[in-house]
Amino acid sequence: MKGTLWGIGIGPGDPELVTVKAARILGACRHVVAPSARTGEGSLALLIASPHLGPQAKVHEVEFPMTSDRALREARWQEAARLCLELLEEGDVAFPTLGDASLYSTWIYLARAVRSLDAQVRLECVPGVTSFCAAAARTGHVLAEEGQILTIVPAAGDEPLAIAEAVGRGSAVLMKVGRRIATVVQALDEAGALERSVLVSRASLPEERVVGDLSLLRDAQAEYLSVVLVEGVRP
Amino acid sequence: MKGTLWGIGIGPGDPELVTVKAARILGACRHVVAPSARTGEGSLALLIASPHLGPQAKVHEVEFPMTSDRALREARWQEAARLCLELLEEGDVAFPTLGDASLYSTWIYLARAVRSLDAQVRLECVPGVTSFCAAAARTGHVLAEEGQILTIVPAAGDEPLAIAEAVGRGSAVLMKVGRRIATVVQALDEAGALERSVLVSRASLPEERVVGDLSLLRDAQAEYLSVVLVEGVRP
Repeated sequence: MKGTLWGIGIGPGDPELVTVKAARILGACRHVVAPSARTGEGSLALLIASPHLGPQAKVHEVEFPMTSDRALREARWQEAARLCLELLEEGDVAFPTLGDASLYSTWIYLARAVRSLDAQVRLECVPGVTSFCAAAARTGHVLAEEGQILTIVPAAGDEPLAIAEAVGRGSAVLMKVGRRIATVVQALDEAGALERSVLVSRASLPEERVVGDLSLLRDAQAEYLSVVLVEGVRP
Repeated sequence: MKGTLWGIGIGPGDPELVTVKAARILGACRHVVAPSARTGEGSLALLIASPHLGPQAKVHEVEFPMTSDRALREARWQEAARLCLELLEEGDVAFPTLGDASLYSTWIYLARAVRSLDAQVRLECVPGVTSFCAAAARTGHVLAEEGQILTIVPAAGDEPLAIAEAVGRGSAVLMKVGRRIATVVQALDEAGALERSVLVSRASLPEERVVGDLSLLRDAQAEYLSVVLVEGVRP
């Protein structure tokens, strides 16, 4: 009898923003497979999950390289999926992932790879607090109120148009702006939305940073884990 | 010295989907002010928060009528704000709200009303798990993956166009579809997105209901707390 593979959204960074359910499951799992962006850098997901792990937990870090090489990424997901299937022979396996597990997360790809290798495996998912909800809580920004459409724009190549359209129809969240922040600031400025925007880096982590005046970032780079919130014009 | 007013996102319904931080603060607050939609019906937010309250907590239910009468709603928010300011004289006050506190929540309006009465009051906000993250976790639907734009469309009058545009650009979440479900199903059908959609009512609550084939709902009504997830076409 195999164990269950748990995809666990562990929230934006503060270990207290893990749900009670996530904490319980992390505390009970036999194995923990944690994603890291680059070998040697350590896993932020694991750092957040750590205070909740039980004494029996064995930790396995797997590298998910940030690369546009699709074949390389696919190969790594398959590798991680095979590891999970092996570990499931010994009991439940937890896969903690930043923010929510169903939104721009490595869990999506891992779950797909596991399913492709074994259609019978038991997968369960625990939802988590997203970085933009944490950023809004921290700054008092409203993500969306009654009647407003909220657009979540991910890191992508076509952002100036996507940003202009998003802030034109309501409120917006721009994910992982990082190195593209100058482009983002220019797009927001041209859309007349700079004054209702705020940038939050590493929301809820000790090194959290809030920038209320985005024009200061015209020539800067932002931290990788940065999100911009753009309030809608009030209805 | 006044207490702090805490806006607390308590998640979609399952008391275990409250964050560790929310549980800690709910357990420590002197007063709890809980929103209910109609007097007599009881507060779902309070029901979820209850297992986490401390023995010292005094509960106050306030009615936020679901009405399009703006003046009536404003009056009720002002009334609730005055109550909170009074209670803050005795210590911290918690205001639990469904899902996340910054997204289509009563907290947004209460915080604004409190600020308008007292600019010095200490407001803090704890983010929560949204209903759509819980619905995605439950059904295995992907909210958005790399490069996809996610549009959150609230209950509003202009949804057929908003829905068509949203599913045309990526993935979508349609909030509180309730009585408008027939219109929603028709719009999704016309946009060719019915097959990648799922409806979840009261996600994570005991009476949760998942409808995978939305065409069954053409002539039906859905529960008030229902959300439709529409996956994007995979990039």
